[in-house]
Amino acid sequence: MSVQTENPPFATLYAELQQFYARHMHLLDTGAAEEWAETFTEDGTFLSPSLTEPVRGRTAIAAGVRESAARLAEAGETHRHVLTTVDVTPRPDGSLFARSYTQVIATPHGGQARLHLMCVCEDVLVLAGDGFRVRERRVTRDDMP
Amino acid sequence: MSVQTENPPFATLYAELQQFYARHMHLLDTGAAEEWAETFTEDGTFLSPSLTEPVRGRTAIAAGVRESAARLAEAGETHRHVLTTVDVTPRPDGSLFARSYTQVIATPHGGQARLHLMCVCEDVLVLAGDGFRVRERRVTRDDMP
Amino acid sequence: MSVQTENPPFATLYAELQQFYARHMHLLDTGAAEEWAETFTEDGTFLSPSLTEPVRGRTAIAAGVRESAARLAEAGETHRHVLTTVDVTPRPDGSLFARSYTQVIATPHGGQARLHLMCVCEDVLVLAGDGFRVRERRVTRDDMP
Repeated sequence: MSVQTENPPFATLYAELQQFYARHMHLLDTGAAEEWAETFTEDGTFLSPSLTEPVRGRTAIAAGVRESAARLAEAGETHRHVLTTVDVTPRPDGSLFARSYTQVIATPHGGQARLHLMCVCEDVLVLAGDGFRVRERRVTRDDMP
Repeated sequence: MSVQTENPPFATLYAELQQFYARHMHLLDTGAAEEWAETFTEDGTFLSPSLTEPVRGRTAIAAGVRESAARLAEAGETHRHVLTTVDVTPRPDGSLFARSYTQVIATPHGGQARLHLMCVCEDVLVLAGDGFRVRERRVTRDDMP
Repeated sequence: MSVQTENPPFATLYAELQQFYARHMHLLDTGAAEEWAETFTEDGTFLSPSLTEPVRGRTAIAAGVRESAARLAEAGETHRHVLTTVDVTPRPDGSLFARSYTQVIATPHGGQARLHLMCVCEDVLVLAGDGFRVRERRVTRDDMP
Protein backbone atom coordinates (compact mmCIF):
# COMPACT_ATOMS: atom_id res chain seq x y z
CA MET A 1 0.00 0.00 0.00
CA SER A 2 2.78 2.31 -0.97
CA VAL A 3 0.54 5.11 -2.20
CA GLN A 4 -1.08 5.75 1.19
CA THR A 5 0.89 8.92 1.90
CA GLU A 6 0.23 10.53 -1.45
CA ASN A 7 -2.08 13.50 -1.80
CA PRO A 8 -4.75 12.96 -3.03
CA PRO A 9 -4.75 9.34 -1.89
CA PHE A 10 -4.79 6.79 -4.70
CA ALA A 11 -8.20 5.47 -3.57
CA THR A 12 -9.73 8.93 -4.05
CA LEU A 13 -8.16 9.36 -7.46
CA TYR A 14 -9.19 5.90 -8.65
CA ALA A 15 -12.81 6.15 -7.43
CA GLU A 16 -13.27 9.63 -8.90
CA LEU A 17 -11.74 8.55 -12.20
CA GLN A 18 -14.08 5.55 -12.46
CA GLN A 19 -17.03 7.79 -11.58
CA PHE A 20 -15.86 10.31 -14.21
CA TYR A 21 -15.66 7.62 -16.90
CA ALA A 22 -19.06 6.21 -15.98
CA ARG A 23 -20.81 9.58 -16.26
CA HIS A 24 -18.76 10.37 -19.40
CA MET A 25 -20.01 7.23 -21.14
CA HIS A 26 -23.62 7.63 -20.01
CA LEU A 27 -23.51 11.15 -21.53
CA LEU A 28 -22.08 9.84 -24.80
CA ASP A 29 -24.55 6.99 -25.08
CA THR A 30 -27.58 9.20 -24.42
CA GLY A 31 -26.38 11.68 -27.04
CA ALA A 32 -25.78 14.54 -24.58
CA ALA A 33 -23.38 16.21 -27.01
CA GLU A 34 -22.59 19.46 -25.17
CA GLU A 35 -22.24 17.86 -21.74
CA TRP A 36 -20.01 15.16 -23.23
CA ALA A 37 -17.83 17.80 -24.92
CA GLU A 38 -17.40 19.54 -21.56
CA THR A 39 -15.72 16.42 -20.17
CA PHE A 40 -12.82 17.28 -22.49
CA THR A 41 -10.56 20.30 -22.06
CA GLU A 42 -11.42 23.27 -24.28
CA ASP A 43 -8.64 22.21 -26.69
CA GLY A 44 -9.11 18.46 -26.15
CA THR A 45 -8.22 16.05 -28.96
CA PHE A 46 -9.71 12.74 -29.98
CA LEU A 47 -7.92 10.32 -32.28
CA SER A 48 -9.50 7.12 -33.52
CA PRO A 49 -8.96 4.78 -36.48
CA SER A 50 -12.61 5.38 -37.40
CA LEU A 51 -11.70 9.03 -38.08
CA THR A 52 -9.71 10.30 -41.05
CA GLU A 53 -8.14 13.01 -38.86
CA PRO A 54 -8.09 13.94 -35.17
CA VAL A 55 -11.04 15.85 -33.77
CA ARG A 56 -9.92 19.01 -31.92
CA GLY A 57 -11.84 21.16 -29.46
CA ARG A 58 -15.22 20.95 -27.79
CA THR A 59 -17.23 22.29 -30.72
CA ALA A 60 -15.95 19.60 -33.05
CA ILE A 61 -16.28 16.91 -30.36
CA ALA A 62 -19.92 17.85 -29.70
CA ALA A 63 -20.66 17.89 -33.44
CA GLY A 64 -19.27 14.36 -33.70
CA VAL A 65 -21.62 13.11 -30.98
CA ARG A 66 -24.65 14.78 -32.58
CA GLU A 67 -23.76 13.18 -35.91
CA SER A 68 -23.36 9.71 -34.34
CA ALA A 69 -26.61 10.10 -32.37
CA ALA A 70 -28.49 11.05 -35.55
CA ARG A 71 -27.03 8.08 -37.42
CA LEU A 72 -27.99 5.68 -34.63
CA ALA A 73 -31.54 7.10 -34.39
CA GLU A 74 -31.87 6.66 -38.17
CA ALA A 75 -30.63 3.06 -37.88
CA GLY A 76 -32.85 2.35 -34.82
CA GLU A 77 -29.89 1.22 -32.74
CA THR A 78 -28.51 1.95 -29.27
CA HIS A 79 -24.76 1.87 -28.58
CA ARG A 80 -23.17 1.50 -25.15
CA HIS A 81 -19.51 2.13 -24.38
CA VAL A 82 -18.50 -0.22 -21.58
CA LEU A 83 -15.20 1.17 -20.28
CA THR A 84 -13.39 -1.08 -17.80
CA THR A 85 -9.92 -2.30 -16.76
CA VAL A 86 -8.57 1.19 -15.96
CA ASP A 87 -4.78 1.28 -15.47
CA VAL A 88 -3.90 4.78 -14.29
CA THR A 89 -0.47 6.37 -13.89
CA PRO A 90 -0.15 9.79 -12.23
CA ARG A 91 2.48 11.93 -13.98
CA PRO A 92 4.91 14.40 -12.43
CA ASP A 93 3.13 17.36 -14.05
CA GLY A 94 -0.12 16.47 -12.25
CA SER A 95 -1.80 14.94 -15.29
CA LEU A 96 -2.89 11.30 -15.44
CA PHE A 97 -2.31 8.68 -18.09
CA ALA A 98 -5.10 6.10 -18.17
CA ARG A 99 -5.26 3.02 -20.35
CA SER A 100 -8.55 1.13 -20.43
CA TYR A 101 -10.62 -1.31 -22.44
CA THR A 102 -13.87 -0.29 -24.10
CA GLN A 103 -16.41 -2.72 -25.47
CA VAL A 104 -18.88 -1.06 -27.85
CA ILE A 105 -22.19 -2.92 -27.60
CA ALA A 106 -24.78 -2.31 -30.31
CA THR A 107 -28.45 -3.25 -29.98
CA PRO A 108 -30.99 -2.81 -32.77
CA HIS A 109 -34.38 -1.87 -31.33
CA GLY A 110 -36.42 -5.06 -31.38
CA GLY A 111 -33.28 -7.09 -32.15
CA GLN A 112 -30.30 -8.86 -30.64
CA ALA A 113 -27.48 -7.10 -28.73
CA ARG A 114 -24.02 -7.71 -30.17
CA LEU A 115 -20.40 -6.88 -29.43
CA HIS A 116 -19.71 -4.30 -32.12
CA LEU A 117 -16.09 -3.30 -31.39
CA MET A 118 -13.32 -4.02 -28.89
CA CYS A 119 -11.15 -0.94 -28.29
CA VAL A 120 -8.26 0.25 -26.16
CA CYS A 121 -8.58 3.82 -24.90
CA GLU A 122 -5.49 5.83 -23.92
CA ASP A 123 -6.24 9.15 -22.25
CA VAL A 124 -4.27 12.03 -20.82
CA LEU A 125 -6.49 13.65 -18.20
CA VAL A 126 -6.10 16.80 -16.16
CA LEU A 127 -7.85 18.02 -13.03
CA ALA A 128 -9.88 21.19 -13.44
CA GLY A 129 -11.39 22.86 -10.35
CA ASP A 130 -14.38 20.57 -10.29
CA GLY A 131 -13.18 17.31 -11.77
CA PHE A 132 -11.32 15.54 -14.54
CA ARG A 133 -11.11 16.58 -18.17
CA VAL A 134 -9.74 14.54 -21.09
CA ARG A 135 -6.96 16.49 -22.82
CA GLU A 136 -5.93 13.81 -25.30
CA ARG A 137 -7.66 10.59 -26.25
CA ARG A 138 -6.26 7.95 -28.54
CA VAL A 139 -8.53 5.01 -29.34
CA THR A 140 -7.31 1.87 -31.07
CA ARG A 141 -9.53 -0.90 -32.39
CA ASP A 142 -8.51 -4.54 -32.07
CA ASP A 143 -9.80 -5.27 -35.56
CA MET A 144 -7.49 -2.58 -37.01
CA PRO A 145 -4.22 -3.24 -35.18
CA MET B 1 -11.12 16.45 -5.79
CA SER B 2 -14.00 18.45 -4.42
CA VAL B 3 -15.57 15.57 -2.50
CA GLN B 4 -12.61 15.07 -0.15
CA THR B 5 -14.26 16.75 2.83
CA GLU B 6 -17.52 14.80 2.61
CA ASN B 7 -18.42 12.14 5.12
CA PRO B 8 -18.20 9.31 4.21
CA PRO B 9 -15.53 10.16 1.66
CA PHE B 10 -16.53 9.52 -1.95
CA ALA B 11 -13.76 6.91 -2.34
CA THR B 12 -15.26 4.86 0.50
CA LEU B 13 -18.76 5.10 -0.89
CA TYR B 14 -17.68 4.19 -4.43
CA ALA B 15 -15.52 1.22 -3.41
CA GLU B 16 -18.19 -0.17 -1.09
CA LEU B 17 -20.87 0.27 -3.74
CA GLN B 18 -18.80 -1.61 -6.35
CA GLN B 19 -18.11 -4.35 -3.80
CA PHE B 20 -21.83 -4.50 -2.99
CA TYR B 21 -22.78 -4.85 -6.65
CA ALA B 22 -20.13 -7.53 -7.23
CA ARG B 23 -21.35 -9.70 -4.35
CA HIS B 24 -24.96 -8.96 -5.33
CA MET B 25 -24.41 -10.29 -8.85
CA HIS B 26 -22.40 -13.32 -7.73
CA LEU B 27 -25.34 -14.21 -5.45
CA LEU B 28 -27.86 -13.81 -8.27
CA ASP B 29 -25.82 -15.83 -10.75
CA THR B 30 -25.27 -18.72 -8.33
CA GLY B 31 -28.99 -18.82 -7.55
CA ALA B 32 -28.60 -17.81 -3.88
CA ALA B 33 -32.21 -16.62 -3.76
CA GLU B 34 -32.56 -15.71 -0.08
CA GLU B 35 -29.18 -13.99 0.20
CA TRP B 36 -29.89 -12.06 -3.01
CA ALA B 37 -33.29 -10.95 -1.65
CA GLU B 38 -31.58 -9.65 1.49
CA THR B 39 -29.59 -7.20 -0.63
CA PHE B 40 -32.91 -5.38 -1.18
CA THR B 41 -34.83 -3.55 1.53
CA GLU B 42 -37.70 -5.49 3.07
CA ASP B 43 -40.14 -3.59 0.79
CA GLY B 44 -37.73 -3.33 -2.17
CA THR B 45 -39.16 -3.13 -5.69
CA PHE B 46 -37.83 -4.43 -8.98
CA LEU B 47 -39.18 -3.21 -12.34
CA SER B 48 -38.06 -4.68 -15.63
CA PRO B 49 -39.51 -4.87 -19.15
CA SER B 50 -39.22 -8.68 -18.88
CA LEU B 51 -41.85 -8.55 -16.11
CA THR B 52 -45.54 -7.88 -16.58
CA GLU B 53 -45.68 -6.02 -13.24
CA PRO B 54 -43.16 -4.85 -10.62
CA VAL B 55 -41.89 -7.38 -8.08
CA ARG B 56 -42.33 -6.13 -4.49
CA GLY B 57 -40.69 -7.36 -1.30
CA ARG B 58 -38.03 -9.93 -0.48
CA THR B 59 -40.31 -12.97 -0.64
CA ALA B 60 -41.34 -12.22 -4.22
CA ILE B 61 -37.79 -11.24 -5.19
CA ALA B 62 -36.40 -14.53 -3.85
CA ALA B 63 -39.14 -16.49 -5.64
CA GLY B 64 -38.15 -14.82 -8.91
CA VAL B 65 -34.53 -15.91 -8.49
CA ARG B 66 -35.52 -19.49 -7.69
CA GLU B 67 -37.73 -19.59 -10.77
CA SER B 68 -34.97 -18.22 -13.02
CA ALA B 69 -32.41 -20.62 -11.55
CA ALA B 70 -34.73 -23.58 -12.18
CA ARG B 71 -35.35 -22.47 -15.77
CA LEU B 72 -31.59 -22.09 -16.41
CA ALA B 73 -30.82 -25.49 -14.86
CA GLU B 74 -33.50 -27.04 -17.09
CA ALA B 75 -31.99 -25.31 -20.14
CA GLY B 76 -28.41 -26.24 -19.14
CA GLU B 77 -27.26 -22.62 -19.24
CA THR B 78 -25.33 -20.26 -16.97
CA HIS B 79 -26.10 -16.52 -16.91
CA ARG B 80 -23.75 -13.83 -15.62
CA HIS B 81 -24.75 -10.24 -14.89
CA VAL B 82 -21.74 -8.04 -15.61
CA LEU B 83 -22.57 -4.71 -13.93
CA THR B 84 -20.15 -1.88 -14.77
CA THR B 85 -19.99 1.86 -15.50
CA VAL B 86 -21.51 2.93 -12.16
CA ASP B 87 -22.52 6.61 -12.05
CA VAL B 88 -23.57 7.36 -8.47
CA THR B 89 -25.24 10.49 -7.07
CA PRO B 90 -25.68 10.89 -3.31
CA ARG B 91 -29.04 12.47 -2.45
CA PRO B 92 -29.86 14.93 0.32
CA ASP B 93 -31.94 12.31 2.18
CA GLY B 94 -28.89 10.02 2.48
CA SER B 95 -29.98 7.62 -0.25
CA LEU B 96 -27.97 7.05 -3.45
CA PHE B 97 -29.05 7.04 -7.05
CA ALA B 98 -26.86 4.75 -9.18
CA ARG B 99 -27.08 4.27 -12.94
CA SER B 100 -25.06 1.43 -14.43
CA TYR B 101 -24.75 -0.86 -17.42
CA THR B 102 -25.40 -4.58 -17.16
CA GLN B 103 -24.43 -7.09 -19.82
CA VAL B 104 -26.24 -10.41 -19.41
CA ILE B 105 -23.95 -13.16 -20.71
CA ALA B 106 -25.48 -16.58 -21.39
CA THR B 107 -23.44 -19.76 -21.83
CA PRO B 108 -24.98 -23.12 -22.69
CA HIS B 109 -23.06 -25.92 -20.98
CA GLY B 110 -20.83 -27.41 -23.66
CA GLY B 111 -21.60 -24.49 -25.98
CA GLN B 112 -20.63 -20.94 -26.91
CA ALA B 113 -20.94 -17.91 -24.61
CA ARG B 114 -23.05 -15.10 -26.05
CA LEU B 115 -24.16 -11.59 -25.16
CA HIS B 116 -27.81 -12.20 -24.30
CA LEU B 117 -29.00 -8.72 -23.26
CA MET B 118 -27.65 -5.19 -22.79
CA CYS B 119 -29.42 -3.37 -19.96
CA VAL B 120 -29.33 -0.12 -18.03
CA CYS B 121 -29.91 -0.47 -14.29
CA GLU B 122 -31.20 2.48 -12.23
CA ASP B 123 -31.18 1.90 -8.49
CA VAL B 124 -32.12 3.84 -5.40
CA LEU B 125 -30.01 2.45 -2.56
CA VAL B 126 -30.03 3.08 1.16
CA LEU B 127 -27.49 2.34 3.86
CA ALA B 128 -28.60 -0.11 6.51
CA GLY B 129 -26.39 -0.70 9.56
CA ASP B 130 -24.14 -3.15 7.78
CA GLY B 131 -24.20 -2.10 4.14
CA PHE B 132 -26.24 -1.08 1.15
CA ARG B 133 -29.73 -2.25 0.24
CA VAL B 134 -31.58 -1.68 -3.04
CA ARG B 135 -34.89 0.06 -2.37
CA GLU B 136 -35.97 0.54 -5.97
CA ARG B 137 -34.57 -0.98 -9.14
CA ARG B 138 -35.64 -0.08 -12.63
CA VAL B 139 -34.05 -2.08 -15.44
CA THR B 140 -34.39 -1.12 -19.09
CA ARG B 141 -33.31 -3.26 -22.03
CA ASP B 142 -31.67 -1.73 -25.10
CA ASP B 143 -33.67 -4.02 -27.39
CA MET B 144 -36.96 -2.71 -25.88
CA PRO B 145 -36.35 1.06 -25.74
CA MET C 1 -19.67 2.00 6.21
CA SER C 2 -18.46 -0.43 8.83
CA VAL C 3 -15.00 -0.90 7.37
CA GLN C 4 -13.92 2.74 7.90
CA THR C 5 -11.75 2.02 10.89
CA GLU C 6 -9.86 -0.88 9.33
CA ASN C 7 -6.26 -0.55 8.29
CA PRO C 8 -5.75 -0.28 5.36
CA PRO C 9 -9.18 1.20 4.71
CA PHE C 10 -11.40 -0.86 2.42
CA ALA C 11 -11.45 1.93 -0.19
CA THR C 12 -7.66 1.78 -0.49
CA LEU C 13 -7.63 -1.98 -0.77
CA TYR C 14 -10.41 -2.06 -3.36
CA ALA C 15 -8.94 0.69 -5.55
CA GLU C 16 -5.48 -0.82 -5.47
CA LEU C 17 -6.84 -4.27 -6.25
CA GLN C 18 -8.77 -2.99 -9.27
CA GLN C 19 -5.68 -1.10 -10.45
CA PHE C 20 -3.60 -4.27 -9.95
CA TYR C 21 -6.04 -6.35 -12.02
CA ALA C 22 -6.16 -3.73 -14.78
CA ARG C 23 -2.39 -3.59 -15.17
CA HIS C 24 -2.23 -7.39 -14.81
CA MET C 25 -4.60 -7.90 -17.73
CA HIS C 26 -2.99 -5.24 -19.92
CA LEU C 27 0.33 -7.08 -19.40
CA LEU C 28 -1.22 -10.43 -20.31
CA ASP C 29 -2.96 -9.12 -23.40
CA THR C 30 0.15 -7.39 -24.74
CA GLY C 31 2.17 -10.58 -24.24
CA ALA C 32 4.48 -9.11 -21.56
CA ALA C 33 5.31 -12.59 -20.27
CA GLU C 34 7.95 -11.79 -17.62
CA GLU C 35 6.14 -8.78 -16.19
CA TRP C 36 2.91 -10.79 -16.07
CA ALA C 37 4.66 -13.63 -14.27
CA GLU C 38 5.95 -11.15 -11.66
CA THR C 39 2.36 -10.34 -10.69
CA PHE C 40 2.25 -13.87 -9.23
CA THR C 41 4.21 -14.99 -6.17
CA GLU C 42 7.42 -16.90 -6.94
CA ASP C 43 5.56 -20.18 -6.29
CA GLY C 44 2.20 -18.99 -7.65
CA THR C 45 -0.20 -21.52 -9.13
CA PHE C 46 -2.69 -21.24 -11.95
CA LEU C 47 -5.47 -23.78 -12.49
CA SER C 48 -7.79 -23.66 -15.46
CA PRO C 49 -10.01 -26.17 -17.28
CA SER C 50 -8.07 -25.32 -20.46
CA LEU C 51 -4.96 -26.83 -18.82
CA THR C 52 -4.33 -30.52 -18.28
CA GLU C 53 -2.50 -29.75 -15.01
CA PRO C 54 -1.87 -26.69 -12.83
CA VAL C 55 0.90 -24.31 -13.84
CA ARG C 56 3.33 -23.68 -10.97
CA GLY C 57 5.89 -20.91 -10.56
CA ARG C 58 6.82 -17.80 -12.52
CA THR C 59 8.97 -19.57 -15.12
CA ALA C 60 6.12 -21.84 -16.18
CA ILE C 61 3.60 -19.00 -16.00
CA ALA C 62 5.74 -16.80 -18.28
CA ALA C 63 6.25 -19.70 -20.71
CA GLY C 64 2.48 -20.11 -20.93
CA VAL C 65 2.02 -16.45 -21.87
CA ARG C 66 4.75 -16.63 -24.53
CA GLU C 67 3.10 -19.71 -26.01
CA SER C 68 -0.35 -18.08 -26.08
CA ALA C 69 1.08 -14.88 -27.59
CA ALA C 70 2.82 -16.85 -30.34
CA ARG C 71 -0.37 -18.79 -31.10
CA LEU C 72 -2.43 -15.57 -31.31
CA ALA C 73 0.17 -13.86 -33.54
CA GLU C 74 0.09 -16.91 -35.83
CA ALA C 75 -3.72 -16.77 -35.93
CA GLY C 76 -3.76 -12.97 -36.42
CA GLU C 77 -5.99 -12.43 -33.41
CA THR C 78 -6.00 -10.17 -30.34
CA HIS C 79 -7.46 -11.36 -27.03
CA ARG C 80 -8.58 -9.09 -24.18
CA HIS C 81 -9.34 -10.26 -20.66
CA VAL C 82 -12.06 -8.00 -19.26
CA LEU C 83 -12.02 -8.64 -15.51
CA THR C 84 -14.91 -7.06 -13.59
CA THR C 85 -17.34 -7.64 -10.71
CA VAL C 86 -14.62 -8.07 -8.06
CA ASP C 87 -15.94 -9.48 -4.76
CA VAL C 88 -13.05 -9.34 -2.28
CA THR C 89 -12.85 -10.84 1.21
CA PRO C 90 -9.87 -10.02 3.45
CA ARG C 91 -8.71 -13.07 5.41
CA PRO C 92 -7.39 -13.22 8.98
CA ASP C 93 -3.89 -14.20 7.74
CA GLY C 94 -3.64 -10.95 5.72
CA SER C 95 -4.31 -12.56 2.35
CA LEU C 96 -7.29 -11.70 0.18
CA PHE C 97 -9.80 -13.91 -1.56
CA ALA C 98 -11.19 -12.30 -4.71
CA ARG C 99 -13.90 -13.70 -6.97
CA SER C 100 -14.44 -11.95 -10.28
CA TYR C 101 -15.87 -12.38 -13.75
CA THR C 102 -13.64 -12.39 -16.83
CA GLN C 103 -14.91 -12.05 -20.36
CA VAL C 104 -12.35 -13.15 -22.95
CA ILE C 105 -12.89 -11.09 -26.10
CA ALA C 106 -11.25 -12.29 -29.32
CA THR C 107 -10.82 -10.11 -32.41
CA PRO C 108 -9.35 -11.40 -35.67
CA HIS C 109 -7.32 -8.66 -37.35
CA GLY C 110 -9.55 -7.29 -40.08
CA GLY C 111 -12.54 -9.20 -38.66
CA GLN C 112 -15.33 -9.09 -36.12
CA ALA C 113 -14.82 -8.99 -32.32
CA ARG C 114 -16.56 -11.81 -30.47
CA LEU C 115 -17.12 -13.00 -26.92
CA HIS C 116 -14.84 -16.03 -26.82
CA LEU C 117 -15.25 -17.25 -23.23
CA MET C 118 -17.03 -16.32 -20.01
CA CYS C 119 -14.99 -17.25 -16.95
CA VAL C 120 -15.04 -16.93 -13.18
CA CYS C 121 -11.68 -16.16 -11.59
CA GLU C 122 -10.98 -17.08 -7.95
CA ASP C 123 -7.71 -15.70 -6.60
CA VAL C 124 -5.83 -15.80 -3.34
CA LEU C 125 -3.67 -12.68 -3.27
CA VAL C 126 -0.97 -11.52 -0.88
CA LEU C 127 0.62 -8.13 -0.32
CA ALA C 128 4.31 -7.94 -1.09
CA GLY C 129 6.26 -4.79 -0.21
CA ASP C 130 5.21 -2.98 -3.35
CA GLY C 131 1.81 -4.39 -4.21
CA PHE C 132 -0.35 -7.45 -4.69
CA ARG C 133 0.73 -10.85 -5.96
CA VAL C 134 -1.49 -13.76 -6.99
CA ARG C 135 -0.59 -16.85 -4.97
CA GLU C 136 -3.32 -19.13 -6.26
CA ARG C 137 -5.64 -18.72 -9.22
CA ARG C 138 -8.49 -21.01 -10.12
CA VAL C 139 -10.34 -20.21 -13.33
CA THR C 140 -13.62 -21.88 -14.28
CA ARG C 141 -15.34 -21.58 -17.65
CA ASP C 142 -19.09 -21.30 -17.91
CA ASP C 143 -19.12 -23.65 -20.92
CA MET C 144 -17.36 -26.37 -18.87
CA PRO C 145 -19.25 -26.27 -15.56
